[in-house]
Amino acid sequence: MSFFSYFNRVLHGHTSGSKLLVLCSVSSGGLIAYADAHSEGGRSTVKHNQEEPRKKRVVVLGTGWAATSFLKDLDAKSYDVKVVSPRNYFAFTPLLPSVTCGTVEARSIVEPIRNITKKRSGQIQFWEAECLKIDPANKKVFCRSSVDEKLAGNHKFSLEYDYLVIAVGAQVNTFNTPGVLEHCLFLKEVEDAQRIRRAVIDCFEKAVLPELTEEERKTNLHFVIVGGGPTGIEFAAELHDFLHEDLLKIYPLAKDLVKITVIQSGDHILNMFDERICSFAEQKFQRDGIDVLTGCRVVNVSDKLVNMKIKSTGEDVSMPHGMVLWSAGVGTRPVVKDFMEQIGQGNRWILATDEWLRVKGCEDVYAFGDCATVDQRKIMEDILTIFKAADKDDSGTLTIEEFQDVVEDIIIRYPQVELYMKSKHFSKLADLLKDSEGNERDAVDIEGFKSALSHVDLQMKSLPATAQVCLLGFRWLHFLYGMYRHFGKFAPLGGEQAAAELPGDWVSIGHSTQWLWYSVYASKQVSWRTRVLVVGDWTRRFIFGRDSSRI
Amino acid sequence: MSFFSYFNRVLHGHTSGSKLLVLCSVSSGGLIAYADAHSEGGRSTVKHNQEEPRKKRVVVLGTGWAATSFLKDLDAKSYDVKVVSPRNYFAFTPLLPSVTCGTVEARSIVEPIRNITKKRSGQIQFWEAECLKIDPANKKVFCRSSVDEKLAGNHKFSLEYDYLVIAVGAQVNTFNTPGVLEHCLFLKEVEDAQRIRRAVIDCFEKAVLPELTEEERKTNLHFVIVGGGPTGIEFAAELHDFLHEDLLKIYPLAKDLVKITVIQSGDHILNMFDERICSFAEQKFQRDGIDVLTGCRVVNVSDKLVNMKIKSTGEDVSMPHGMVLWSAGVGTRPVVKDFMEQIGQGNRWILATDEWLRVKGCEDVYAFGDCATVDQRKIMEDILTIFKAADKDDSGTLTIEEFQDVVEDIIIRYPQVELYMKSKHFSKLADLLKDSEGNERDAVDIEGFKSALSHVDLQMKSLPATAQVCLLGFRWLHFLYGMYRHFGKFAPLGGEQAAAELPGDWVSIGHSTQWLWYSVYASKQVSWRTRVLVVGDWTRRFIFGRDSSRI
Repeated sequence: MSFFSYFNRVLHGHTSGSKLLVLCSVSSGGLIAYADAHSEGGRSTVKHNQEEPRKKRVVVLGTGWAATSFLKDLDAKSYDVKVVSPRNYFAFTPLLPSVTCGTVEARSIVEPIRNITKKRSGQIQFWEAECLKIDPANKKVFCRSSVDEKLAGNHKFSLEYDYLVIAVGAQVNTFNTPGVLEHCLFLKEVEDAQRIRRAVIDCFEKAVLPELTEEERKTNLHFVIVGGGPTGIEFAAELHDFLHEDLLKIYPLAKDLVKITVIQSGDHILNMFDERICSFAEQKFQRDGIDVLTGCRVVNVSDKLVNMKIKSTGEDVSMPHGMVLWSAGVGTRPVVKDFMEQIGQGNRWILATDEWLRVKGCEDVYAFGDCATVDQRKIMEDILTIFKAADKDDSGTLTIEEFQDVVEDIIIRYPQVELYMKSKHFSKLADLLKDSEGNERDAVDIEGFKSALSHVDLQMKSLPATAQVCLLGFRWLHFLYGMYRHFGKFAPLGGEQAAAELPGDWVSIGHSTQWLWYSVYASKQVSWRTRVLVVGDWTRRFIFGRDSSRI
Repeated sequence: MSFFSYFNRVLHGHTSGSKLLVLCSVSSGGLIAYADAHSEGGRSTVKHNQEEPRKKRVVVLGTGWAATSFLKDLDAKSYDVKVVSPRNYFAFTPLLPSVTCGTVEARSIVEPIRNITKKRSGQIQFWEAECLKIDPANKKVFCRSSVDEKLAGNHKFSLEYDYLVIAVGAQVNTFNTPGVLEHCLFLKEVEDAQRIRRAVIDCFEKAVLPELTEEERKTNLHFVIVGGGPTGIEFAAELHDFLHEDLLKIYPLAKDLVKITVIQSGDHILNMFDERICSFAEQKFQRDGIDVLTGCRVVNVSDKLVNMKIKSTGEDVSMPHGMVLWSAGVGTRPVVKDFMEQIGQGNRWILATDEWLRVKGCEDVYAFGDCATVDQRKIMEDILTIFKAADKDDSGTLTIEEFQDVVEDIIIRYPQVELYMKSKHFSKLADLLKDSEGNERDAVDIEGFKSALSHVDLQMKSLPATAQVCLLGFRWLHFLYGMYRHFGKFAPLGGEQAAAELPGDWVSIGHSTQWLWYSVYASKQVSWRTRVLVVGDWTRRFIFGRDSSRI
């Protein structure tokens, strides 16, 4: 089921053959289908002389992975869709580390959002502006244009919505570390990557000037990366390649002075990956001469120094730097934080939705992507309701056929069912209903049903709210978190080597993985234009190397 | 003769078979060959225990056309060459108008200066810094790094030179018009082009926001270009194509609101071109709906209005704008202005050099490109000296053979000779010495020589100090101003049409000229990398159009 049909179903409540869906929706406290029917009825009395009923207004905040995937699947003809974002383009963020060193050009990974929306059959309006405030009580959002205020006309406006989709992503999290905002670079936006590229060249240009001491040159050529997650590690690897394949050839003076240091608070870098990948990365970095400091917490950053505490000894250490990249974590955007406080989620760190992606604590607001997380529901809590809904003939037993009728709805709402079946290598529903001796049963009573599903909730995982999950979620049949049918988690490690965790818990490391990375990333591009450009950039880099002009 | 050999010759005074050169140099007041020998002798007594004599220090200011062409031809092994420029790259500036609209990407037209210099056999050092002051009395230049001052080490330094080469180019000239610096965009640097690109998108994004009046939308979509020279006109044409081929398709609301106006103080746009080109351009712009206001002088620019005076009537007119590009002329950079005051050229508007490109009024300083102009010398002023130097056997008559021996030197110093011969369609020297009846002579006396050359000085032209002249000058056999063997002056006019003045005073207009423009501009790229990228960009534009992401 694509997200479009899901969205339609939730909004319009098509209940054909789907009693269960209604029941479950009721049980979770809000039935949009009911609300919709009610409000449309109300309005039609006022506007009965108009030919077409007013389309429902859907306001989408954001143009990142989540929003773009949503827009690509939405039946824009059925709604009055307005998109608001401070960026008028979609950016393929997994390639941002490549942009920092010019392996790929910034413009090759962006696609104007209007190019994406104009392909949708209906008319989707886009406005380049930032949403400053969400007012769920009055169903309004307040926005401000991010363009130069000198241009004519009001730069603030508000929009009313019937449904609001929040997909604004996350922002950098400094954990309130002093000096980080002032003296560190980040890697969340395309502009960040461009800024890093210029900063790296600046460090080299400054370091080779006359009248500098050796120590000053070394300081300027010391690149520090705070955070040993995929972004930091990929940037370190890219930078290492950039230095050794390109820059040191034209800045020979810098050869023995340049250094890259990764600071990680945990015990290992890439600690969300398989252990084999961790240790491969650590060994490769050691061979490459990239320093990895684990168990260190950065206390503050000044224009000249990174100050940190070694966790094991409590010792304070200072490190002069030319440039610091802060990639230690993500946080909630102010507009979302403010919204969370309004709806009673003020004590949470991230916006919570139910399994329908509806924001908990308010109506007609949906959220997904990096800015939200799904609070999953246990199947055992609803087991009686499910059984009753599925047992259409009220016989007190559930046949395989009856179960078959509702299983799709069950899986959407309780994705752990599918994960459980996969983990047990069940190929068909009948396998799920087998008795404890492994014999197939044609029907089960409530106790049998309970025992068949008793271990299902163990499969519940709080899936990471990453963009990849989100993208894949929307684009494939079962769009939701439970499925997480990803192409794998990749960590390019430089020198044409990469590591990956592939579906089915396979681990792949080395040169062939880098080629897999190339093909996956090329195939996942949002348009043919960006696909051609990205592949062109890779080719250009192989032939001519990376450009070191300071632009 | 390439510039390298010329430079060597001037510096070292290789007089083999070139008495005339020495004589002429003496007559013009400074003999570098003599100065060189003198100073080297002086220094060798101090450093006699060193094996190699210290190489002469050549400091080059700039990385534009002039400096780059000079560096490409210089025998870097014979000198200690240092290059200082605030830009660590060479930019192919004729394509800047294409960068403003994304027809070509900024990075495709730049080449790191280190990539260019590393190909030279000797070691050329480059420092990214701006020269703030030239001290010709102490033969020193004072520079400041343009990089963030937060990086470690002193950001100011000074360099001593034996020879200084000033090739810093020109800067925008606002003619002190109030508000221009604050409210206009320019098109001199790569960053300018990127800024314009973002500004155009900003105007569109702002114009389509909700809650704006029609008038406000129109104001934001009014693009004003001040200056009807090649840059302004090419930008207007590029912008028109960008609007109609790309932007209006994704901003349909802007269709009837957008307007481009060119303001020209003269009576015609492109008035340095042939009349046929002028009127073709004016007609094409009229068909395209680009407003051309001639005979208007801009009095001041505010954030909302361009205020101008209609020259014929004296009437004051105001025009609301979304964006103003100022391309009305070039001026002298402050560092050159200050230097001119030190050497007694304070009352001139541009630095003057002699025909050897030596700055007048100081020693061992050379200047060329947009920052300087050559004061040409009349051949009739030196006619006696030339005759005596050429008449080796002191016979009182000059034979064809004797004339042949010195003609190369004459042509360098008095380029009008070659221009004159071309204009008369003389194919050989003997033609020049023909008597008034057109009979060939084997020898001439001084009066005959005078009358043969009497009309030569009429060919003296103050050649425009454009980058193209400079580039071509250096790269081809006769490098100097007199030759101006250009590939033609081009004016792309949009819609795949261009106009050109080609060598031999041919005028070419239309689609085929645009293809000629493509091939000339591709062939003139500084490296294979930029050539491939530029052609790739053109191809990409044909297939996918221009990108409208605001990055």
